[in-house]
Amino acid sequence: MNQVPIPSQRFHRRVLVRFRDCDPAGIVFYPRYLEMFNNLVEDWFRDGLQLPFAELINERGWGIPTVHINVDFVWPSRIGELLNAYLWVRRLGRSSIHIAIHLQGPDGSDRVVSKEVLVFTDLSTGRARAIPEELMNKLVQFKVTEEKVNADSPTA
Amino acid sequence: MNQVPIPSQRFHRRVLVRFRDCDPAGIVFYPRYLEMFNNLVEDWFRDGLQLPFAELINERGWGIPTVHINVDFVWPSRIGELLNAYLWVRRLGRSSIHIAIHLQGPDGSDRVVSKEVLVFTDLSTGRARAIPEELMNKLVQFKVTEEKVNADSPTA
Amino acid sequence: MNQVPIPSQRFHRRVLVRFRDCDPAGIVFYPRYLEMFNNLVEDWFRDGLQLPFAELINERGWGIPTVHINVDFVWPSRIGELLNAYLWVRRLGRSSIHIAIHLQGPDGSDRVVSKEVLVFTDLSTGRARAIPEELMNKLVQFKVTEEKVNADSPTA
Amino acid sequence: MNQVPIPSQRFHRRVLVRFRDCDPAGIVFYPRYLEMFNNLVEDWFRDGLQLPFAELINERGWGIPTVHINVDFVWPSRIGELLNAYLWVRRLGRSSIHIAIHLQGPDGSDRVVSKEVLVFTDLSTGRARAIPEELMNKLVQFKVTEEKVNADSPTA
Repeated sequence: MNQVPIPSQRFHRRVLVRFRDCDPAGIVFYPRYLEMFNNLVEDWFRDGLQLPFAELINERGWGIPTVHINVDFVWPSRIGELLNAYLWVRRLGRSSIHIAIHLQGPDGSDRVVSKEVLVFTDLSTGRARAIPEELMNKLVQFKVTEEKVNADSPTA
Repeated sequence: MNQVPIPSQRFHRRVLVRFRDCDPAGIVFYPRYLEMFNNLVEDWFRDGLQLPFAELINERGWGIPTVHINVDFVWPSRIGELLNAYLWVRRLGRSSIHIAIHLQGPDGSDRVVSKEVLVFTDLSTGRARAIPEELMNKLVQFKVTEEKVNADSPTA
Repeated sequence: MNQVPIPSQRFHRRVLVRFRDCDPAGIVFYPRYLEMFNNLVEDWFRDGLQLPFAELINERGWGIPTVHINVDFVWPSRIGELLNAYLWVRRLGRSSIHIAIHLQGPDGSDRVVSKEVLVFTDLSTGRARAIPEELMNKLVQFKVTEEKVNADSPTA
Repeated sequence: MNQVPIPSQRFHRRVLVRFRDCDPAGIVFYPRYLEMFNNLVEDWFRDGLQLPFAELINERGWGIPTVHINVDFVWPSRIGELLNAYLWVRRLGRSSIHIAIHLQGPDGSDRVVSKEVLVFTDLSTGRARAIPEELMNKLVQFKVTEEKVNADSPTA
């Protein structure tokens, strides 16, 4: 697998692999990676988009359910490792947010490479709704150019 | 989305959506689906392939880490719902097991549709190893014909 | 520790120790026992008290938050073990439900011994409310006599 | 409940209440508090006692299973809240470590108050072993005086 360069528009957090994340084989149990991804999206909304989940969900009555994920678990991670987590926007629809999430080991090698699609939703109806303009203006700041997406994923 | 017919070679279990699976929006938190999938694979190995995880991992020193998942979350599930979970084999490599997992609601509609790749591994080295013949003979009993895989996923 | 005899009024379920429950030491990660307990209470409400959580929470607007737990982890449990889980009522207040939960290994020895206090709550206000008479009538069927509680826990 | 003053010998970390921690009632699902406690002990061993879990478990072959917990869930916590988590040592045996963990809300009020007992263990045998002198010397730095323990918990 050719490793994809991390674009400059990305949101970054460090993620510690904890005892609670690891299975009897001593490596991260893969559903725990999905919890890490959800935490990362939560941090991104709070710190990168200035829309904390408490406000998004409780005050606005909106949600961003994940409708699709495509994940390669490239290399296992072990307890105590400090991973680098990167998130960026690949594509924006009227109500859909296509993101990439890459987890890298301390040496910069890929551990987990993920593409996800979130849908902006009205919680009271459970139906998709248009992303508000104010939020859209912030989302585009994390969006890579089309060229990079193409190079990244010719089959996407 | 055209719903895929469940093949006759599938492994089947019922899965109850529990309080612990649900998020503040009252629907299954998506990493919990991945835990359900792992439970299903565990049940399949024990009851469908006669190789319980305790024997697989502790006695034989083997593992089956998930290296790829591709999941569509088609429709949300709620607490107390009894889902039908179906698993079958799409393709078998020397050490790789390509499976499909479909979760359906009580009315037979799709909730979650997943493709996963597991790799048969030697835990002491962490490297892939050939699937033993005895296990391979059991795995093929859950394998759909090529035609059905193609119809299912022309781009796979 | 003198093992406590399981009273006849108990609710019983079998609980399989799964891969997802186990930590890098190969034994159940202790917060997972608390999830098993919550599942047991959920099963008890549905099958023993005829009040499924979906009805309790969504239709009635009630909740039963746990306000106290006291747990002895007597002996570790391992993947693939089929535990026996027993639940009974130790004491009933106007709005509080004091329960015992015992998990035993296949040989009948104690694995986890727990006392918990649940409080019947109105979800809209978050405040305790009186247990409805219909539910109270069912709860007393799982209640041990005072003598047994005293013998069980002189310091409670 | 009289709130206990936090002693000066305590280990402190801030804990963010995340989406993944919360249940359909919008409050922290109580087994998730136990995961927070395990994370806190993990941070304490790494940063307070200079013995990271990766070294403790993988290199030394030791473990610290929790054998007892006693937890009061005083007040619910909600998504986005930044809690203060305090941990200190109440008592030290030859191989047992009695700790207190208090979680407080942003206003300093108690949310969860816990007492736990960990046992220093040899993972190869699963049996208790004496706490090494080097570790004991660090543990005592987080130990409150007997008087405070008595005032804290007259019935312990």
